[in-house]
Amino acid sequence: MAIKKQAVNPEDDLGFGTQAVRQRIINRDGSINVKRLGIPFFSTTNTYHRLITMRWPLFWLNVVVAYIIVNVFFATIYLSIGISNLHGTEDNNVTTPFLNAFFFSAQTLSTVGYGHISPAGAVTNWVAAFESMIGLLAFALATGLLYGRFSRPSAKFVFSDNILIAPYALTGGRGLMFRLANMRLNILLDVAIEVTFSFNEVVDGKNVRRFYTLPLERSKVSILTLSWTVVHPLDKDSPLYNITAEDLTSSNATFNVLVQAFDDTFSQTVHSRTSYQHNEVVFGAKFTPAFTHDRDGLVQLHLGKISDFEEVELPEIG
Amino acid sequence: MAIKKQAVNPEDDLGFGTQAVRQRIINRDGSINVKRLGIPFFSTTNTYHRLITMRWPLFWLNVVVAYIIVNVFFATIYLSIGISNLHGTEDNNVTTPFLNAFFFSAQTLSTVGYGHISPAGAVTNWVAAFESMIGLLAFALATGLLYGRFSRPSAKFVFSDNILIAPYALTGGRGLMFRLANMRLNILLDVAIEVTFSFNEVVDGKNVRRFYTLPLERSKVSILTLSWTVVHPLDKDSPLYNITAEDLTSSNATFNVLVQAFDDTFSQTVHSRTSYQHNEVVFGAKFTPAFTHDRDGLVQLHLGKISDFEEVELPEIG
Amino acid sequence: MAIKKQAVNPEDDLGFGTQAVRQRIINRDGSINVKRLGIPFFSTTNTYHRLITMRWPLFWLNVVVAYIIVNVFFATIYLSIGISNLHGTEDNNVTTPFLNAFFFSAQTLSTVGYGHISPAGAVTNWVAAFESMIGLLAFALATGLLYGRFSRPSAKFVFSDNILIAPYALTGGRGLMFRLANMRLNILLDVAIEVTFSFNEVVDGKNVRRFYTLPLERSKVSILTLSWTVVHPLDKDSPLYNITAEDLTSSNATFNVLVQAFDDTFSQTVHSRTSYQHNEVVFGAKFTPAFTHDRDGLVQLHLGKISDFEEVELPEIG
Amino acid sequence: MAIKKQAVNPEDDLGFGTQAVRQRIINRDGSINVKRLGIPFFSTTNTYHRLITMRWPLFWLNVVVAYIIVNVFFATIYLSIGISNLHGTEDNNVTTPFLNAFFFSAQTLSTVGYGHISPAGAVTNWVAAFESMIGLLAFALATGLLYGRFSRPSAKFVFSDNILIAPYALTGGRGLMFRLANMRLNILLDVAIEVTFSFNEVVDGKNVRRFYTLPLERSKVSILTLSWTVVHPLDKDSPLYNITAEDLTSSNATFNVLVQAFDDTFSQTVHSRTSYQHNEVVFGAKFTPAFTHDRDGLVQLHLGKISDFEEVELPEIG
Repeated sequence: MAIKKQAVNPEDDLGFGTQAVRQRIINRDGSINVKRLGIPFFSTTNTYHRLITMRWPLFWLNVVVAYIIVNVFFATIYLSIGISNLHGTEDNNVTTPFLNAFFFSAQTLSTVGYGHISPAGAVTNWVAAFESMIGLLAFALATGLLYGRFSRPSAKFVFSDNILIAPYALTGGRGLMFRLANMRLNILLDVAIEVTFSFNEVVDGKNVRRFYTLPLERSKVSILTLSWTVVHPLDKDSPLYNITAEDLTSSNATFNVLVQAFDDTFSQTVHSRTSYQHNEVVFGAKFTPAFTHDRDGLVQLHLGKISDFEEVELPEIG
Repeated sequence: MAIKKQAVNPEDDLGFGTQAVRQRIINRDGSINVKRLGIPFFSTTNTYHRLITMRWPLFWLNVVVAYIIVNVFFATIYLSIGISNLHGTEDNNVTTPFLNAFFFSAQTLSTVGYGHISPAGAVTNWVAAFESMIGLLAFALATGLLYGRFSRPSAKFVFSDNILIAPYALTGGRGLMFRLANMRLNILLDVAIEVTFSFNEVVDGKNVRRFYTLPLERSKVSILTLSWTVVHPLDKDSPLYNITAEDLTSSNATFNVLVQAFDDTFSQTVHSRTSYQHNEVVFGAKFTPAFTHDRDGLVQLHLGKISDFEEVELPEIG
Repeated sequence: MAIKKQAVNPEDDLGFGTQAVRQRIINRDGSINVKRLGIPFFSTTNTYHRLITMRWPLFWLNVVVAYIIVNVFFATIYLSIGISNLHGTEDNNVTTPFLNAFFFSAQTLSTVGYGHISPAGAVTNWVAAFESMIGLLAFALATGLLYGRFSRPSAKFVFSDNILIAPYALTGGRGLMFRLANMRLNILLDVAIEVTFSFNEVVDGKNVRRFYTLPLERSKVSILTLSWTVVHPLDKDSPLYNITAEDLTSSNATFNVLVQAFDDTFSQTVHSRTSYQHNEVVFGAKFTPAFTHDRDGLVQLHLGKISDFEEVELPEIG
Repeated sequence: MAIKKQAVNPEDDLGFGTQAVRQRIINRDGSINVKRLGIPFFSTTNTYHRLITMRWPLFWLNVVVAYIIVNVFFATIYLSIGISNLHGTEDNNVTTPFLNAFFFSAQTLSTVGYGHISPAGAVTNWVAAFESMIGLLAFALATGLLYGRFSRPSAKFVFSDNILIAPYALTGGRGLMFRLANMRLNILLDVAIEVTFSFNEVVDGKNVRRFYTLPLERSKVSILTLSWTVVHPLDKDSPLYNITAEDLTSSNATFNVLVQAFDDTFSQTVHSRTSYQHNEVVFGAKFTPAFTHDRDGLVQLHLGKISDFEEVELPEIG
C-alpha cells in the first residue's frame, strides 16, 4: 500500500511513538482503550468523577448503603451512651435497643424528627445536634450529585454501523462515507468533525503505526437538523486513493472519529467519539434515505435507519 | 432567476440532499421543523430535557402529581402493615385510615415530622426511615430542576416582523435588511449573525433546493446596546442582486437567521434563531428609528417599535 | 482635527447611526447607559436576572418579606378553616389565634415541625401537607439563588483613574496609556483588551459621531500576574497622532474599554468594561511603579497605587 | 549567550518591565508567586473564592465553628427571653439552661424539630420561626459550597521532574523535552501547550529580563490518551540553539509552562501551569517509556514513571 507520508502525525508523540498496535485506542462507544496506573484513588475529583459517571443502579446502591452505614454508626454511639437517654423508645413497639437507636438516628439524619423518640442528657443531645448537621450536609451532597448526574452535558449520536466506499456524485469518483444523527432531544449547533485514519506499515523492515487526518468534503455544519453523511473524497490526494479491503485488513486500519457540537438547550460544548475497524468498511455500497415525509409533507427522520445501505456499482478508479 | 452557484452549500448534505422542500426548516420562534423518530423516551438526558424545557404550569402539575403519587404509594404500604402501627391517628380528627396514612406519609416525605402521628414497630419504622431518605432526595431533585429552569442560559431577541429591500446609503444601491434587539435585561457581547438564503431551482428539469450564506455588511458586534440593523448589500456579487417579489414566491425562498452571543451576566454563550419566508419580504421600505431621547437626553430604545418601517422609493438597480 | 476615516465603524449600525451624542454609552463602572422600554417584567429570565444582580440588603429583604407573606397567607387559611383544628395552641402561651396559626405555618413551611402544634382534621392536614411541599420548593429556590449570587462568574479590575499621553520608549514617540490590575483572588488567563475611540466630527455641516478601534502595542496576555499598562502608540497611523486636549474636549471624545479574560479558578470566561471621557485624559504624564519588593525580594503589587502618575516632558511629535 | 531579540516579549508589559528578577513568577505547583496588596477582604467573590479553594480540613472546621457560633448566638437570645418559654426542658435531663437553649437552637436550625422542647410565647416563637428560616438558608449555602468544591473544574497533570536536552530523532539534532500525563480519570481533549523561556541579560551594562515563547514540535493534540512528550527543537532558529548549563545558571533561566484542555466529562475548559528552573534542566538524557503492555496486549500507562530518564550521548551541535 503506497501512502504519502505526513510530516507530523496526530498521535505519534502521544506515547505510542511509531509502535505497531493491534488495539483500538478509541472504542466504538467512545471510551478510551488505555489503562492508566497510579491515578490516586481518594482524590476529591476522582471520587466525584466516579459518582457522576457510574451507572444508576450502582449510584442508588451507594446512596442507600451510605445511609445505612451512617445510621449504624450513630446508632452505635447512642447505644454506647445509653439507650435510656433516648426517651420514648418504650412506646415505639420496637424491642431491640439497637433498632430503636437506629430509627432515632434515621429520624435525626433526615431531620424528620417526629419527636416520639427524643434525646435526653447533654451527651446524647450533642451527638444528635451534630448528626442533624451532618445529615443536612450529606443530603446536600447527594442532592448535588443527583442533579450533577442529571444535568451533565453530553452528546449522544447514532453513528452508522459501517463506513462505506461509495460513488461520490460531486467528483464522479469514490468517497469514504459514514452517517450520524443526534439521538437527543436537544438542538446541536456548530457541529464539527475530525476523522483520523491509522494503519501499520513496514518501514526499513520495522512495523510502524501511521496516522493521517482525512480531509472531509465538509467538516462543520451550523445546525444539525437531520442526519449528516460525512464524506472523505477518495481523490488522488487521499492516502486511501486506490485502497482495497485486503490493504485495510493487512495494515490493521482504524478510523477514529471525533465530534464536537454546541448544545443549544444547555449552552455547553459537547463531544462524542467513535471508531471503525477495517472489518467495518463496506466496499460498493451507498446509504439509503433515513427520512420519509408524513401526511403534511413534514420531514421525519428515522434514527433506526441510519445504518441502512444498499449495494451499488463503484466507478472505476480514474 | 439567475443565481450564481456555490461549490459547497451549507445544508446540502444534512439529509435534504437537493430535494425541493416547501417546509421551513427553522420556525419563526427558532424551533426546528423536523420530526425525529426513534429517540429513546426514557433516557436520563431526554427526561431532564423535557422537565427543563416544558412550560411552567405543566412543570408544577408534574411536581404536585408526583408528590401525591409517592404519598399514595407509601400510604398504601403503611396501611398494609397496619394503621395501628401509626400512633396518634386517633387524635388527628381524620376518620379514614387511608388519609391518616397519607398525611403521615406527607409529613415524613417532606421531613416536617410533627410527631403527633409517629411510627411504631420495626417494619413501619423501616419504611418511614426509607421514605424520609427518598423525600430528601426527591425534593433535592425538584430543587435542581427548579433552579435549572430558572438559570438556563438563553437569549431572547425581538426580530423585526419583516425583512426589507431598502435603499442602502453606503453603496447608493439596495440592501436586504432586518432588525433585532435584546429582549432580556442582560448585556450581550460578541454578537455574531449568520444568514442563509435557500430557494428552489429547476436544474435539468428537476426541482432542486439551493442554499447560500449571505455576506453581511458586518456580521459581528462587540456589544449590543441598542438595536442592530443587519444588512446584506444587494451588489453585483449577491445572489439576490436583481431579485423580484415574484422570484421569491415562485422559488419558495426562505431566509434562515442564526445568532450567537455571549451573555455577560451569566458568562455563557447563548444562541437564537429565526426565519423569514418569501411573503415576509417587503420591497421599497426602510426601518424608522426605534429609539427616542428622554428629558435628560438619554437614549431610550422602544422594543415595540423594532418592526416599524415606512415605504420609500428604491434606487434603480445599477 | 484631521482623522482618517474607517470604512466600517464598530458601533455605527448599533442604532446610533451617525448621530452626535453627548452621553457615555458605557459608564465608568461598566454598566450600559441606554434605557430599553418594553422589556417584559414578569419573564422568568428577567426575574432571575434581577434576583441575582440586586444588592445584598435588597436580596435579604426580599427573602424575609416573601417568608412573612407566605406565612401570613397560610395562617389566614388555617384560621378560616378553624383554629380548633390546630391542636396544642393552648400550650403555646400565644393568645392571638392568628399568631398561633402563623407560627404553625412557619414551622410547617420550614419543615421544622416541632409538633407541639399539630394539624387535625382532613382539610387542615391537606393544607399542611401542601404547605410543607411548597416550603421545600421555595427554600430550594432560595438556595439556588443564594448560591447563584455567590458563584456568579465576574471579573473585577481596578483601572487607573486617568488615561495618559506619555513618552513611549519603544518608538521614542508618544503613547496613550492606561493601567489595570485584577482586584480578585482568582488567576486570570488569556486576558484580551479592545479600546474604541469615539468623537463628534462635522461632515458637510452636520455633526456626526465617529468610532475607531485603536491598535494596541499588545492586546492579549497569557497570564495577568501584576498590573498591565495598555499602550496605544501615537504613531503616524494613529487617528490620535497629533491630537490636543482642546481637540478631545471640542469633539466630546470618549474611550471605551472592553476586557475579556478566563477565570482559572472557576474555568469561565469573564468580561469587564470601562470608559474614559476627554476630561480624564492627562497630557505629559507617566505611571509610577505600583509594586515594591518585600524583604525576601518578592514582588508586591499595591492595587491602591494603580492610578499613580507623575508629570513628564513629552517628546516632540516627529 | 547570544540570543536573538523578539520585538514584543510576552510578559514585558505585565509590570515587571525589563527588571531582572530572581524569583519564579509561576511556582512548580502552578500557583503565582506575586503578592497583591489592597484586595478587599470582605467582597462576596473573594469570600467564595477562599471557601471553595481552602483545604478540606479547614473547610470542615469553618462549617462546624459557624454551626456552633450561630447556635450560641440564638441560645443567648432564647436565654435572654427566658428559659421558661422553652417547654419540655425539664424532661431533657440537661441541667444547664444555656445548654437546653443551645440544643433547642440546634434542633431548630437544622429543622429536625423533635418537639420535646418547643417554643412558647410570641417572642420565642418569632425567634424560632426566624431561626429555622436562617437555618435552611445557611445549610443551603453550605450545600452549594460543598458541591462547588466537589464539582470545581480543574486539571491535574503530572509533569516530569526535569526538562531534558535530548537527542531529537526527527532533525538529527537536539531537542528540549519534558513530559506530562493526565492524573485524573476524565478524558482531556484539545490539549494545548505554551512554553515561555525567560532569562536575565546584560544590555548596555544594565541587567534586564527577556522572555521568549518557544516554538514546539506540536503545541496541540486532539485527545490525550497516554503521556505527551513536549519538544522544542534546538535548531538554528531557537534562542537556546547552543546553550550550556552555565548559561542557564548565570542568566537565572526559567521555563514557564501553560496547559489548556477541554474536560470531556464535565464539558469545561481547564488550565494547568508549572515551571522549570535552570537547575532542573538535564543535559544528555532521554525519557524511558512510561507504559507497558498487559497480558492482553493492552497498553498500560504508569503515571509514576513519567519522570524516568536515562543518560545518552548528545549529537554535536551542527
